[in-house]
Amino acid sequence: MIGYIVTGHAQFATGVTSAAELIAGKQDHLVACNFDDFSNADSIYYKLQDAVNELSDCEEIVVFCDLLSGSPYNKAIQLKVDTGNTHMHIVYGINLALLIEAFTARGNDSSLEEILAIPDMAKFFMGVVADAPAADEDDDF
Amino acid sequence: MIGYIVTGHAQFATGVTSAAELIAGKQDHLVACNFDDFSNADSIYYKLQDAVNELSDCEEIVVFCDLLSGSPYNKAIQLKVDTGNTHMHIVYGINLALLIEAFTARGNDSSLEEILAIPDMAKFFMGVVADAPAADEDDDF
Repeated sequence: MIGYIVTGHAQFATGVTSAAELIAGKQDHLVACNFDDFSNADSIYYKLQDAVNELSDCEEIVVFCDLLSGSPYNKAIQLKVDTGNTHMHIVYGINLALLIEAFTARGNDSSLEEILAIPDMAKFFMGVVADAPAADEDDDF
Repeated sequence: MIGYIVTGHAQFATGVTSAAELIAGKQDHLVACNFDDFSNADSIYYKLQDAVNELSDCEEIVVFCDLLSGSPYNKAIQLKVDTGNTHMHIVYGINLALLIEAFTARGNDSSLEEILAIPDMAKFFMGVVADAPAADEDDDF
């Protein structure tokens, strides 16, 4: 089993997780860690540590972070380095498409490598809707 | 002024907004619309309609949606078409980097065109941390 941790600033982690579970179904082996005690940057380190311990029966753990170089990301990296945990993998900049795809892939017994390839795919599901040309911009010729 | 609406399934919109405001500061002319009445898909249409009305003093409105082709996205498109509102612009697949950049850009009086170029940039802030080679994989030659 591959364990999942979702982490981010304020209510990002629980917010995006609620949306992904609504669409892809409730998940086992999933812990959402909000960084909401801003007076203590280490608080998210200890939450992540607890989450990793809670997922101790998982062979691999993927940590889905809201933002490259934010505190949740930095503390996840620090925890991986401090513990020398080569089974902890860190994804950053997640959006909902990425997380839904990760939930679905795990449900389909996809490999760790397949799951870690999802961010490259999810980039194509971020964009802007192009406006149709306005009628008064049309020419008759 | 450019108005912002953030919308998504369950608590996505309020979650990502709480994180972006924590980092980029509290925002005026911003409405977060959670799609949380799943028994009624039109509920998010009416929330978006109320949000557009609330931002009626804005020359342009950007709607930041969680997911391409989800209900919040589909209803935003429908509202734009129903009202023929050419000042309503729709972004999808947002992540936290995109929203922080959009908040910052607006604060710096960036143009609508500059704001609508942010999703292409934000794609580069989604990825996987590459593992360092394990020590036992090193060769001495």
